[in-house]
Amino acid sequence: MNEDAPIGVFDSGLGGLTVVKELIHHLPNERIIYFGDTARVPYGTKSADTIIRYSREIVKALLEEKVKMIVVACNTASSLALEVLKKEFDLPILGVIEPGARKAVAVTRNQRIGIIATSSTIKSGKYAQKIVQLNNAIKVEAQACPLFVPLVEEGWFDHSVTFQVAEQYLVNMKKKKVDTLILGCTHYPLLKNVLHNVMGPRVQLVDSAQEVALQVKDELAKNHLLRTRLKPGQHTFIVTDEPLQFQRLALRFLGGGVKNVRRHVYV
Amino acid sequence: MNEDAPIGVFDSGLGGLTVVKELIHHLPNERIIYFGDTARVPYGTKSADTIIRYSREIVKALLEEKVKMIVVACNTASSLALEVLKKEFDLPILGVIEPGARKAVAVTRNQRIGIIATSSTIKSGKYAQKIVQLNNAIKVEAQACPLFVPLVEEGWFDHSVTFQVAEQYLVNMKKKKVDTLILGCTHYPLLKNVLHNVMGPRVQLVDSAQEVALQVKDELAKNHLLRTRLKPGQHTFIVTDEPLQFQRLALRFLGGGVKNVRRHVYV
Repeated sequence: MNEDAPIGVFDSGLGGLTVVKELIHHLPNERIIYFGDTARVPYGTKSADTIIRYSREIVKALLEEKVKMIVVACNTASSLALEVLKKEFDLPILGVIEPGARKAVAVTRNQRIGIIATSSTIKSGKYAQKIVQLNNAIKVEAQACPLFVPLVEEGWFDHSVTFQVAEQYLVNMKKKKVDTLILGCTHYPLLKNVLHNVMGPRVQLVDSAQEVALQVKDELAKNHLLRTRLKPGQHTFIVTDEPLQFQRLALRFLGGGVKNVRRHVYV
Repeated sequence: MNEDAPIGVFDSGLGGLTVVKELIHHLPNERIIYFGDTARVPYGTKSADTIIRYSREIVKALLEEKVKMIVVACNTASSLALEVLKKEFDLPILGVIEPGARKAVAVTRNQRIGIIATSSTIKSGKYAQKIVQLNNAIKVEAQACPLFVPLVEEGWFDHSVTFQVAEQYLVNMKKKKVDTLILGCTHYPLLKNVLHNVMGPRVQLVDSAQEVALQVKDELAKNHLLRTRLKPGQHTFIVTDEPLQFQRLALRFLGGGVKNVRRHVYV
């Protein structure tokens, strides 16, 4: 393992690019290899063993790219596959659940934290588990929001329909007076406006992407793997479906152009 | 090939069960083997070559079950993979596009037909192509409705949000004064109420499931493959993700219990 090796980041599709954006911001010298499983997206409605199987295949593909570390940028895969992956593979692997939980615990003032995520992430109970491990006085309210991902992919970020859907999904969060809401899916930061509107200005939204980037930085430093060359890294994107469509949609998440996209076909 | 062999039906997930329901109704003696690719659903947002690859794998799996005929119950797979499958495999394979197009052409009075479907089906242009082949005086208006499938899967059949989404998607259909609307995705029949409300009572909704069942009956008769035993057939369901979740959701589509569900894992 050498410091010039790239960081592998994977997600079920595009959403993990919100994590890539933060990684680029906090670690501008690193090279990133992003793997988006666009031919099998979404993961959030699928079972644990299917998600574990897919995640294992992706880690193997990233190992062939000689990555020095892997970031599981998908909340669903982090919830359901991270522990298995850590046991099976011998390199640092980080997920997005712990950084998000840690941040939420740090910012809550009334000890009431809400979590919104895909059905599979909520069903796993992983966020609640982590939060209670950190502070067992905290009350957790969890809600699956299956329509949020398709609404983001339709580009309806500030649409009145999205607002109404959010009103319905978040009704219990408001009743329980959470003061902190974890955006437990990488698509949700694109709905920040609507979520702020529905929850009110006193509720803090926790987007784990930034926390993840900081944890990656720590972990690399600890392992003496921070890239020291000053030349900015060249990033690569691997997808399992059509690269062109990915390139077009990636703009929404990354806010900039995406070059070097290629396709990976499962054998 | 013998008449006692089952009919293979496949779909990206659950939606094709609306076709199974009609097949059971019109062909009560037949045995059906349904294959739902629930681990890779949906197809409607994915590229042609990914859909062709998946469809080919499923046909191979159904051939191992010794089916006498295959029905591609998924509109997206019918649009993008049917021609390839017909060339590559030596048994009768039927799709859902032609029966739907034929029915719409038969019922329109003002020669204006609308089609709503997934993004990939609309992009393929297959419905419009078939309709114009049948009658080139007909004007076709097509609209992708990516939020309809997630709304059905959320169970929001008559929700006000679903109504507003439909209002937005169908605004051009109404402007163009179509008198016939093809429901070009197997999930959409579950939104009939909302679609009727939005389009008005003078617009006919064409659900191809029934037409498909009648065409299957014809095709079997032509090939002397109609099952003549009077004992009702025993059906089998194969899925690629968790069977239990499929069983639970299948009720919505089939309106009755689903037994004999097993899992297929790709190697």
